[in-house]
Amino acid sequence: MKARIYVTLKPDVLDPQGKAVFHSLQELGYSEVADVRIGRFLEIELTGEPADARLRLDEMCRRLLANPVIEDFRVEPA
Amino acid sequence: MKARIYVTLKPDVLDPQGKAVFHSLQELGYSEVADVRIGRFLEIELTGEPADARLRLDEMCRRLLANPVIEDFRVEPA
Repeated sequence: MKARIYVTLKPDVLDPQGKAVFHSLQELGYSEVADVRIGRFLEIELTGEPADARLRLDEMCRRLLANPVIEDFRVEPA
Repeated sequence: MKARIYVTLKPDVLDPQGKAVFHSLQELGYSEVADVRIGRFLEIELTGEPADARLRLDEMCRRLLANPVIEDFRVEPA
């Protein structure tokens, strides 16, 4: 099976990378852009269809893929 | 309006960041993981509901947000 994981900064956390992209878009003339936030997107392929895949993926996120202090994550089957 | 943009490496392009995460997951004992690919995920807020928003977002991707030589992108209204 395949899973998709979305890792985003928590809403209260500053996003300097997003701000940099926002300013570049403004300079390129895209004045309609009001805000940009940047996150990560992971595609994970698992062998078989493990029954506890969802739990294991949540655990991978908490242990390695995301920083739960400043980031939120969402796991979706692909 | 809000839009979500997913930027992923084209399937033929090597993903060293994904490989590093894959090996770390293996070392942590997640032997069911067969592959990891990592991409970017952008949330863009636009003022108003521009009629040509979709076209403009595609253009932003080609000009700044993605590298069309090695990356694919997908734009979705949020």
